[in-house]
Amino acid sequence: MNPNELKILLQSISDGSLSVADGIERLRTLPFEDVGVAMIDHHRELRQGTPEVILGESKSAGQIFTIVEKMAEKGSNILVTRINREKAEPLLARFPDGSFDAESRTFCLEQKPLEFATRGKILVICAGTSDIPVAREASVTARMLGNEVVEIVDVGVAGIHRLLARGDQLREAAVIIVVAGMEGALPSVVGGLVAVPVIAVPTSVGYGAAFGGVAALLGMLNSCASGITVVNIDNGFGAAYAATRINRLTSP
Amino acid sequence: MNPNELKILLQSISDGSLSVADGIERLRTLPFEDVGVAMIDHHRELRQGTPEVILGESKSAGQIFTIVEKMAEKGSNILVTRINREKAEPLLARFPDGSFDAESRTFCLEQKPLEFATRGKILVICAGTSDIPVAREASVTARMLGNEVVEIVDVGVAGIHRLLARGDQLREAAVIIVVAGMEGALPSVVGGLVAVPVIAVPTSVGYGAAFGGVAALLGMLNSCASGITVVNIDNGFGAAYAATRINRLTSP
Amino acid sequence: MNPNELKILLQSISDGSLSVADGIERLRTLPFEDVGVAMIDHHRELRQGTPEVILGESKSAGQIFTIVEKMAEKGSNILVTRINREKAEPLLARFPDGSFDAESRTFCLEQKPLEFATRGKILVICAGTSDIPVAREASVTARMLGNEVVEIVDVGVAGIHRLLARGDQLREAAVIIVVAGMEGALPSVVGGLVAVPVIAVPTSVGYGAAFGGVAALLGMLNSCASGITVVNIDNGFGAAYAATRINRLTSP
Amino acid sequence: MNPNELKILLQSISDGSLSVADGIERLRTLPFEDVGVAMIDHHRELRQGTPEVILGESKSAGQIFTIVEKMAEKGSNILVTRINREKAEPLLARFPDGSFDAESRTFCLEQKPLEFATRGKILVICAGTSDIPVAREASVTARMLGNEVVEIVDVGVAGIHRLLARGDQLREAAVIIVVAGMEGALPSVVGGLVAVPVIAVPTSVGYGAAFGGVAALLGMLNSCASGITVVNIDNGFGAAYAATRINRLTSP
Amino acid sequence: MNPNELKILLQSISDGSLSVADGIERLRTLPFEDVGVAMIDHHRELRQGTPEVILGESKSAGQIFTIVEKMAEKGSNILVTRINREKAEPLLARFPDGSFDAESRTFCLEQKPLEFATRGKILVICAGTSDIPVAREASVTARMLGNEVVEIVDVGVAGIHRLLARGDQLREAAVIIVVAGMEGALPSVVGGLVAVPVIAVPTSVGYGAAFGGVAALLGMLNSCASGITVVNIDNGFGAAYAATRINRLTSP
Amino acid sequence: MNPNELKILLQSISDGSLSVADGIERLRTLPFEDVGVAMIDHHRELRQGTPEVILGESKSAGQIFTIVEKMAEKGSNILVTRINREKAEPLLARFPDGSFDAESRTFCLEQKPLEFATRGKILVICAGTSDIPVAREASVTARMLGNEVVEIVDVGVAGIHRLLARGDQLREAAVIIVVAGMEGALPSVVGGLVAVPVIAVPTSVGYGAAFGGVAALLGMLNSCASGITVVNIDNGFGAAYAATRINRLTSP
Amino acid sequence: MNPNELKILLQSISDGSLSVADGIERLRTLPFEDVGVAMIDHHRELRQGTPEVILGESKSAGQIFTIVEKMAEKGSNILVTRINREKAEPLLARFPDGSFDAESRTFCLEQKPLEFATRGKILVICAGTSDIPVAREASVTARMLGNEVVEIVDVGVAGIHRLLARGDQLREAAVIIVVAGMEGALPSVVGGLVAVPVIAVPTSVGYGAAFGGVAALLGMLNSCASGITVVNIDNGFGAAYAATRINRLTSP
Amino acid sequence: MNPNELKILLQSISDGSLSVADGIERLRTLPFEDVGVAMIDHHRELRQGTPEVILGESKSAGQIFTIVEKMAEKGSNILVTRINREKAEPLLARFPDGSFDAESRTFCLEQKPLEFATRGKILVICAGTSDIPVAREASVTARMLGNEVVEIVDVGVAGIHRLLARGDQLREAAVIIVVAGMEGALPSVVGGLVAVPVIAVPTSVGYGAAFGGVAALLGMLNSCASGITVVNIDNGFGAAYAATRINRLTSP
Repeated sequence: MNPNELKILLQSISDGSLSVADGIERLRTLPFEDVGVAMIDHHRELRQGTPEVILGESKSAGQIFTIVEKMAEKGSNILVTRINREKAEPLLARFPDGSFDAESRTFCLEQKPLEFATRGKILVICAGTSDIPVAREASVTARMLGNEVVEIVDVGVAGIHRLLARGDQLREAAVIIVVAGMEGALPSVVGGLVAVPVIAVPTSVGYGAAFGGVAALLGMLNSCASGITVVNIDNGFGAAYAATRINRLTSP
Repeated sequence: MNPNELKILLQSISDGSLSVADGIERLRTLPFEDVGVAMIDHHRELRQGTPEVILGESKSAGQIFTIVEKMAEKGSNILVTRINREKAEPLLARFPDGSFDAESRTFCLEQKPLEFATRGKILVICAGTSDIPVAREASVTARMLGNEVVEIVDVGVAGIHRLLARGDQLREAAVIIVVAGMEGALPSVVGGLVAVPVIAVPTSVGYGAAFGGVAALLGMLNSCASGITVVNIDNGFGAAYAATRINRLTSP
Repeated sequence: MNPNELKILLQSISDGSLSVADGIERLRTLPFEDVGVAMIDHHRELRQGTPEVILGESKSAGQIFTIVEKMAEKGSNILVTRINREKAEPLLARFPDGSFDAESRTFCLEQKPLEFATRGKILVICAGTSDIPVAREASVTARMLGNEVVEIVDVGVAGIHRLLARGDQLREAAVIIVVAGMEGALPSVVGGLVAVPVIAVPTSVGYGAAFGGVAALLGMLNSCASGITVVNIDNGFGAAYAATRINRLTSP
Repeated sequence: MNPNELKILLQSISDGSLSVADGIERLRTLPFEDVGVAMIDHHRELRQGTPEVILGESKSAGQIFTIVEKMAEKGSNILVTRINREKAEPLLARFPDGSFDAESRTFCLEQKPLEFATRGKILVICAGTSDIPVAREASVTARMLGNEVVEIVDVGVAGIHRLLARGDQLREAAVIIVVAGMEGALPSVVGGLVAVPVIAVPTSVGYGAAFGGVAALLGMLNSCASGITVVNIDNGFGAAYAATRINRLTSP
Repeated sequence: MNPNELKILLQSISDGSLSVADGIERLRTLPFEDVGVAMIDHHRELRQGTPEVILGESKSAGQIFTIVEKMAEKGSNILVTRINREKAEPLLARFPDGSFDAESRTFCLEQKPLEFATRGKILVICAGTSDIPVAREASVTARMLGNEVVEIVDVGVAGIHRLLARGDQLREAAVIIVVAGMEGALPSVVGGLVAVPVIAVPTSVGYGAAFGGVAALLGMLNSCASGITVVNIDNGFGAAYAATRINRLTSP
Repeated sequence: MNPNELKILLQSISDGSLSVADGIERLRTLPFEDVGVAMIDHHRELRQGTPEVILGESKSAGQIFTIVEKMAEKGSNILVTRINREKAEPLLARFPDGSFDAESRTFCLEQKPLEFATRGKILVICAGTSDIPVAREASVTARMLGNEVVEIVDVGVAGIHRLLARGDQLREAAVIIVVAGMEGALPSVVGGLVAVPVIAVPTSVGYGAAFGGVAALLGMLNSCASGITVVNIDNGFGAAYAATRINRLTSP
Repeated sequence: MNPNELKILLQSISDGSLSVADGIERLRTLPFEDVGVAMIDHHRELRQGTPEVILGESKSAGQIFTIVEKMAEKGSNILVTRINREKAEPLLARFPDGSFDAESRTFCLEQKPLEFATRGKILVICAGTSDIPVAREASVTARMLGNEVVEIVDVGVAGIHRLLARGDQLREAAVIIVVAGMEGALPSVVGGLVAVPVIAVPTSVGYGAAFGGVAALLGMLNSCASGITVVNIDNGFGAAYAATRINRLTSP
Repeated sequence: MNPNELKILLQSISDGSLSVADGIERLRTLPFEDVGVAMIDHHRELRQGTPEVILGESKSAGQIFTIVEKMAEKGSNILVTRINREKAEPLLARFPDGSFDAESRTFCLEQKPLEFATRGKILVICAGTSDIPVAREASVTARMLGNEVVEIVDVGVAGIHRLLARGDQLREAAVIIVVAGMEGALPSVVGGLVAVPVIAVPTSVGYGAAFGGVAALLGMLNSCASGITVVNIDNGFGAAYAATRINRLTSP
């Protein structure tokens, strides 16, 4: 039931062609969907200007191509995540302005200019070179969601002076995403140095008792620095989305 | 080495009483600590006006009393978490203006007025009545850290209409903390309804395969709503601290 | 917004005191709750004649007493689960017609006659004497939810002939709840013998590598008998509720 | 020992050609099997008209072909699950009337008309597009086992209004199978909306802390909606079989 | 249906008072139980002369007393396991000839002489003094089940010479039960030294990453010595029962 | 130091060519190995007549070939386990009398007649057709280690009458190896029917919450039938070796 | 068989009172124990001057008292670990020179002067005040085992400047024991700062997803600083013992 | 800020061209990095003469080639770990003096002579032939880090006499690395025989309940021999690095 249908219904009551009793009955069974969408407008606000996002992992090259083509017609910006080169090539052939990044496994198509949040920058830090794919997924996603992004790579806790030397950049960030595998300790150190929100992303980097990222995940959940929050293992996209929720936030 | 000592050192160089070579030597070994504190001023900014926080759990009544008494002398506001009635009673006797909340197991002493963040309110939602202690710890902490707080209790996903009926409050929040045990599904539903940051707190409520909160924790980490972040099981304090990092954030 | 308020609103439109445009606006923001309740009538149907249920575990004797007293005023039947003798005694003093069962840790108050489902009986089987508390919780719950119940106790797979000797009772059941700890194998055997729905309840009985019911839970999830479903560890209540969903089911 | 043999034995006693003592001895060692089959007739009832089912996963193309060919001779309907295209092709060549569904990885051969249960429809709901293969396995299985089936895809909890808008279909179902990966929250929401039996199927969809479906499994076992039952991860077949036990159930 | 009833039934057929058809009908529904017991005579053989066993853990002092008293009337030998002193005292008062062993938490009542298996002795070895309770439960059980028992305590792998010095006793055993907590390595060493059956019992001794016996259990399951078998954590009773199956074994 | 060397040493002392002091010194540092071998003769006894065993899994075709060729020269019987066809072919070419079994992944070379234990047969039972490879590994190993072997396949607990119908074979076994995946319940049923030793082998058959055999392993460790012992997942070889320890056992 | 007995044996051969053949027989069966002790003298060297150690946890006050009294007679230094005040009091009454430390739960009795290793000091660092009991157990143990010990408490990674400010003490240590709960990140930072051996001790401090020290343990095993070694959770004693193996090490 | 820059800064103060106040300001914000490096000289000491190490696992052949070529220019010794033959071949072509070891998956280039620690040898022991790759990684790493290395292979606990026969080599080692999979028991036995530091390396060798090395890891953490330390699963490199920290240690 869209607003138009509702208008017709109420007019029928207003002009007497529908009794109040029948009106009650019809209204009590109106679809939840429309009322739901009408009610919650915050969500819609976020979506304006932000890209359409497609999780490429479990989709075939053909499926991705079809979806992207359909969305591109609307003029949207488009972000495909977890996409490999093989799946990306048909897209690059069809959309020469699109860009594929092999490291972060993302495809981006900017059909209209990104409008960046004016609050501040999102800083993405990663502990080791092996964490770069996840960090890059966070960077690319954050940018496509309308944020300026700065990256610092390879500043692990075993060489703590390398991190401390980047004090300026830590100071300037509005939100910090910290990506780390192995023991996942970097967010604790960063969280002790800054007052801004810190989002920790465990990665599946490591072997043996790293258990595919579980060690890093547990380390981050048990951080001794107060107020660190955590997303799923390797979930660079989610961290960027969460950072966007923070960075684009305006007072209600 | 505090700023004063540094000044004396440099003046000795300036007036020639210390050679450049000796000055280099002394500077190279100056304590990191002070430079560290000087460098990182964001953190200090957060602390101003915020309470001293004491984790009461592993401390005896006597230890807590001593620490609180010492801090109270400085005129600080004080928050003690994970404190039971037995440990709280000496504090209540000594500080009649303090307040103990049995449900959240917190003791608060407000010696100077709280200055609330002007950005917005922190909304704390919990799924079931058993989650209230953790939700209340988040509420009390968020308030003591300088935020206005609103609470909604008992709106689980099995009665989804109860949540949907609170649309106004969801709309007004600047940050939402969602506390849930059992399957931990509420943050996904909330995250799908709002665009503001959502922090999920799993609780150890439940039995059997709830595994002391692990089921809820995993549910939250795997949320199908994008951009949900998670803190440790039962960590209402951490969620409030993270929400404060977000709510007190000002553009750099 | 209850039906009455809705009637008043539509009458205002009908008599012209409210414009169609204003009516649309007010309707779009009406609380979901009432529409929700109106929409889902299946659920209501189940509730008719069924008891009010209170999970006693995390509530104090005082809290339970207050809730029961309030509900009793409406004349409802009442079931309190996970209640120990200490908490039950004030209830027994106040409601002499109520009954407390120490084994299943339940308190029942029947203020109006139970109407039993005409489809068939729910059979509750348990593997060992230690499983009886969970089996009894299932029995008591199933009965209070309006089902005739039969119990068979202590028919484990290591003495399979004891189960086979009860063929008549297996044949007569409309739904079978099988409660088992340790290796949780009984549901597989039962599921291979009957065609009716079988609901498996793992119990936390056992020690060592039983891991508080996990061994039984995994055994049941991996049952080689097709179409066995499983509920949480020790969740006799849930199994009875699921059996009731099946036994009270009428063609739509 | 079939009934005929038993008859001959008793007649030998009756006509004196076998002594009572020898008869006792022979009876005490008669095969359990036949008595067992004779005793349990519920199971036989289910099997009538239902297809032969072959789990294709651990069998070679050749093994599957041989089994299907042998069964087909009897005129049975046949369902092969967990079969890929490579293994299905010899079957399709041999049985042109058979059908292979790549998504659900099933091969069906209907040699005689399916007789559908008259009670009602089985509704299969899945949370995301990635859950479709498991949902489809449930649908195909439920149909071959003699049930009318309706499917709703892609109605996750993060877009709860999409589910709520399908109220009619929820209302009409006799049994609902809910398939979900990630946090596995959808069954809780559905279970709160309907009174009919709800069977939850966790899927191995997700990554990181989804742990191959464990997060969804735990979420479902800890559902806050009463009376949800659960089957093994990705076990669409088992859910359909359980639903059939319910839907085909007739009063004893 | 005991043999007597069967005899009467067949005689009725023999003398014509029961028709063959009615006889078939009655036989087809005869209780499985009796046939089962008749069929499996190996099991019965084991039970002769062996004690009645009661698992005391989940039973009250009163329940245990009642069961023991009833069994004692038949003149059986009786073994109660997992019984503490409090529960044992009523038994000791009633049966002055009974014996309670606090370490193994067992109560034994020998009313008729034990007949020991003539094959050989069961050797029970434990790694540390903390493993003694479990080892002793194995010893007491093995003796009551009719085996001669020898015990060696405190011969861990970190002092391997202490074990090697007991070569004579290793040589003489017919079956060896090895009880060990912590890393559970002793069975591997013993299994490499002897050719007789070795049954490993992990204990819950240890702390931290011992995980209540899981470390020892895994160590034993992965033993590099071929042909070690394992029972549940702390299951001294089960190990003794398994050893008895071996030691009492006679050629079929 | 073999006995001969020891004899020469003592003779040197006896004839005075070696002083007592030097003799002490040489004896104190004599290799442990020889004393060890001398001391433990049980183990040697087992090895006589038994095959050389090679675990093929982590070895290359070339490595296996070299080892087998070297052992074959001594005239030993040889068993290679966990070997695939590719690795087996060079062996078959070189030893035309050898036999490769693809299902159990074993290669056997019998150069001298097997001497079977006179005690009795080893019965290998498996629950489903997918368990056959592990069961066959146990069968082949048990035979090569000098035992007569009987196999029963596909008698799961969901069709319990199929097992009960094999009462004769259960009765005749000296040791029973039960192989089962999924819920691993079969050993409990078998253990309740017989008095002889039962060795349970969990298999990695199953999916989802089978966790690669963990569900079956836990089921077996928690068996409600007393005196079942367990070996590692898929360890058919180990079960056969353990059964041989039992079946070849002679009174000391 | 001690050296003296061996001497007598060889002399009997030398003087002809024992034949070579009988000597061979007696030597082949000589206890391994003595040869073992004779052979491995490194271990003995460590023990000289070091205390007798008693693990008090699973022993009664009476048992501990008896053992200590017996050892004290030999004039040894004595260390009892995991002992509470209740168990310590009889010892304090009997040995007024002994000392009980409630925090580390240790009782020490120094009857002869400790001889400290001349190599260097053992530095014990702990991350939070809750880790002090484990750190203190390490300190007390290390001292009693003959090492000079320095302690630094409460230098967690969230306040990294506090650690960096202690550069002098890090520089001076010969071995560093790092004790940390929660995310267990401190050893990584320390290991990146120093070249000496670092032993990490996870503690069970923390709640929720700390899982009793598992998070810290995994963090330490996955340390990104090379060459960190780890001991069991809460195993302060073991860390000190390992540090002693290092610190007392002399070139072979 | 390197020492030279610092010198210029202080000279500006000394000659009056920079005020003391400005000097303070500039010093307070100087990069941490340089001070850090200046402060911690122990670490630098270790690095002198030691090779550059590259973890080859997550790098492409091209990336490795570039890094090695750049490092080789400085004349350093170079160790690449976790490198397969395919990635090694370009290196071997470019550096004919380099050596690739397929078993340990290492590439070594010695451009200047290794200087061995004078303290003693590092002994690497492994339990089975399957553990050799990890043991060899430890050996190669230890040698390249400047230690003499001795290897003993295939001395598992099930054939304990083989280990005991190697007493001389155990006696001569300064540090012992023990590599073991399956139950991981060997370090306990070794730790009971020697007084020098023992570092245990669990390997992922084994199947079923070995859980990829977890069984061995837990066994080692729970070792009954005091003072064993543990590194991550398969971490031969880390063990060698830790051994080097010990073996190269000089008194401060």
